[in-house]
Amino acid sequence: MLKLRRIPLDTHREYVAFLSRDCAAYRAEGFRALAKIEVSAGSRRILATLNIADNGLIVGPDELGLSMQPFATLGLPEGAEVEVRQASPPESLESVRSKIRGRTLEATEYRAIVEDIAAHRYSQMELAAFLVSTAGFMTTEEVLALTRAMAEVGNRLTWPDPVVADKHCVGGIPGNRTSMVVVPIVAAHGLPIPKTSSRAITSPSGTADTMEVLANVDLSVTRMRDMVERQRGCLVWGGHMNLAPADDVLISVERPLNMDTPEQMVASILAKKVAAGSTHLLIDIPVGPTAKVRSQSDAIRIRKLFEYVGGQLGLTLEVTITDGRQPIGRGIGPALEARDVMRVLGNDPAQPLDLREKSILLAGRILDFDPGVRGGSGAQLAREILDSGRAQAAMEAIIAAQGPPPAWRGNGHYAEDIPAGQSGTVAAIDCYRINRIARLAGAPMDKGAGLDLMKKVGDRVRKGDPLYRIQAGFAADFAFATGMARENSGYAIQ
Amino acid sequence: MLKLRRIPLDTHREYVAFLSRDCAAYRAEGFRALAKIEVSAGSRRILATLNIADNGLIVGPDELGLSMQPFATLGLPEGAEVEVRQASPPESLESVRSKIRGRTLEATEYRAIVEDIAAHRYSQMELAAFLVSTAGFMTTEEVLALTRAMAEVGNRLTWPDPVVADKHCVGGIPGNRTSMVVVPIVAAHGLPIPKTSSRAITSPSGTADTMEVLANVDLSVTRMRDMVERQRGCLVWGGHMNLAPADDVLISVERPLNMDTPEQMVASILAKKVAAGSTHLLIDIPVGPTAKVRSQSDAIRIRKLFEYVGGQLGLTLEVTITDGRQPIGRGIGPALEARDVMRVLGNDPAQPLDLREKSILLAGRILDFDPGVRGGSGAQLAREILDSGRAQAAMEAIIAAQGPPPAWRGNGHYAEDIPAGQSGTVAAIDCYRINRIARLAGAPMDKGAGLDLMKKVGDRVRKGDPLYRIQAGFAADFAFATGMARENSGYAIQ
Repeated sequence: MLKLRRIPLDTHREYVAFLSRDCAAYRAEGFRALAKIEVSAGSRRILATLNIADNGLIVGPDELGLSMQPFATLGLPEGAEVEVRQASPPESLESVRSKIRGRTLEATEYRAIVEDIAAHRYSQMELAAFLVSTAGFMTTEEVLALTRAMAEVGNRLTWPDPVVADKHCVGGIPGNRTSMVVVPIVAAHGLPIPKTSSRAITSPSGTADTMEVLANVDLSVTRMRDMVERQRGCLVWGGHMNLAPADDVLISVERPLNMDTPEQMVASILAKKVAAGSTHLLIDIPVGPTAKVRSQSDAIRIRKLFEYVGGQLGLTLEVTITDGRQPIGRGIGPALEARDVMRVLGNDPAQPLDLREKSILLAGRILDFDPGVRGGSGAQLAREILDSGRAQAAMEAIIAAQGPPPAWRGNGHYAEDIPAGQSGTVAAIDCYRINRIARLAGAPMDKGAGLDLMKKVGDRVRKGDPLYRIQAGFAADFAFATGMARENSGYAIQ
Repeated sequence: MLKLRRIPLDTHREYVAFLSRDCAAYRAEGFRALAKIEVSAGSRRILATLNIADNGLIVGPDELGLSMQPFATLGLPEGAEVEVRQASPPESLESVRSKIRGRTLEATEYRAIVEDIAAHRYSQMELAAFLVSTAGFMTTEEVLALTRAMAEVGNRLTWPDPVVADKHCVGGIPGNRTSMVVVPIVAAHGLPIPKTSSRAITSPSGTADTMEVLANVDLSVTRMRDMVERQRGCLVWGGHMNLAPADDVLISVERPLNMDTPEQMVASILAKKVAAGSTHLLIDIPVGPTAKVRSQSDAIRIRKLFEYVGGQLGLTLEVTITDGRQPIGRGIGPALEARDVMRVLGNDPAQPLDLREKSILLAGRILDFDPGVRGGSGAQLAREILDSGRAQAAMEAIIAAQGPPPAWRGNGHYAEDIPAGQSGTVAAIDCYRINRIARLAGAPMDKGAGLDLMKKVGDRVRKGDPLYRIQAGFAADFAFATGMARENSGYAIQ
């Protein structure tokens, strides 16, 4: 029996435990550093990766330390008595090993794997092994089985309405905040659209980060239900709702590995949407040389996979392939993107027209899901809702219902314009590099940080004209971002 | 600039860094927990996985903490000024990603991957990705390229002699300490056999652990050279010699994943042997239902791969397929195995005959490498060297030259005999379970712990007869091991 101690370390999704080298249990069990151990107290148990502490600073010989995340999951106070033992590797790893050897797995095997992943029974290296083994080859039936398992393990929301709309973009395009225009348009029309979004992992802002500039995004399922009943829509963060939790765990390894195969992308997106109770879904695949999807043929292959898996799961699903050759809108970073969104909703003369037009297109496709809308008239309807101010009013109602945003530090005291190195026409903008510079400037942690684009593809520029402004709330961030931008602005001028 | 601090945590081969959440560099760079960062001071630099500390207990806001292993590698004192930045992922990961997509890699790509792995630039999940991507499929040319790269990155020993012998067993058989009999026989004959061995990772003892009961095994390359000149052989631990260091890093992920494909096994073993300067190599592949290699056809496939890769690397290589249906010898665990070895060398009436006969067979194959030995007479020669006491004398000289062993705790105060549950004949012994019970008893950390087998396959037993004795130095270990043995002894009696 050891005494539980909370170690104030953020180890993200990797559960880490700490034992003293002088601990009797450590020696008795023949534990090694990096072994997986099971920590239990009564019926509560978690698995964690073991670090060995060499003096009493971190844990004493009669203590078991847990980093913040597993401590919270175990849910016991400091000083509680816990037991430790060697963890048996999850049985579903045998299926992963056969997948490595080339076997096609059964649906029951994906289910067991997903249950173990959602329960944090896989170490990071085991997660990587699963991802790589499936990245090599998956049949469409395997993608379906994985998606279904991910959707079924965790919470599932249900709604009383026959049509529950949602949209999702596969990502990679800076500033692409269409959801925040589409949701109020669709809600104003009266179609329920309970939108849950993620925070940025490697990009300068996710929809949840940008919405959080305007309103609270961390709502309970009960409050979200209430909003959908009254406002027909919401724009909230899905992080605490336990929707397809295995997906969150897998993403924590996919991102550092920079692995995002079509099969994993489709499973990840559709599992979250099915768990959230959507019935009608629009998928946006931007295609461009620096977007996530780089060719039309890749986009078509992904579209077919979305259609097949979505169809088998009972979703009405449309895929739209859009222009992903440059950022959408002008602001990159939470506050700058929120500004663009509110300008579009307010029909402000300074609004970015590409964000407006793309949002109308997407909202129109969703309105076409409504059986009461005459086929093909959705886009016209969306335009009227936006122009009339009804979308703006819907957004204001959503913001009021979600409540005020948390306070945030940093508000762009530092700013510098990045000039064109030559005269000519903007031929291309590197989405990847623009994301990276905005991220260095402090986005999304510093909500005010990011880039404000003054030129887009096709614009004529003279040498020295500002291409974009970098904003940052902190000197060090500002130096990093401007340094990278001066080295290469990400703009190609011809 | 941050001040370096040593965090007394053993994180094995995973390099871990610690920053305070209040550290300016953490916020500025937009680091996330589990990101990989580069820590540098002048020309020294290492990569480490980041953990975020939430109060000043572990690191202060102006400090950068490193766990024990990266602290030692960086080689700077506490308080030294270091810089941190986002680490770019190693470029060779692009090759791993193409391997995942099914491409066959070039030799130059394996070289780059191995250099990055040896320099600790791969995180655990990246190592797992590489292992799984190659476990799916490798051509024999790829195995050769990987082996050559692993052998060439790190130290390489060279010897003045035209024949430098070595032997290696692919493992899995408890008690199989033939090297400690073979080396003195071969050395007594006068053939150089500089044997470097590993410590146990998942087994109850490695050759280095068992030899360490009798002598110091942690020798410098200079002292090893000196020994080979005078004694012709040695039995040392290779851990500090930096031979094929990428292999050590890969093994740290292969073992927890329980992945050991023929390709990885061949590359791992041959890279170490080439780096150690061997010219003539005997490989022992035990085959049995609970051994690492389970069928004759698997053994033949592995044999051919050893022969091809070894041949291309200029090794004279012989593979012998042996009986792996049960443990070899009687003792399992460092001290008990050392007892068996010394009994064989001393022609003690209590010696285990299977260890003696197998050692003579293997030593004979190695003596046959000597151009001065008449073809096929090696085994007879080995028997004569053993029977005459010359092997024992050679072992005593080796032990004296290596110096006295370190002190060790625990000496088997606890002992219990595990009885046969029925009368009959021992039909099978489960190597895997015997290893596990011996490990639970405390081997190899407790040198005296382990199992002493009293019955082997083919022996007749009566119900209640002792099958083996469990020895342990600590009460908790003893309880774990006897508990597991009582549940299932690992013996099948018919």
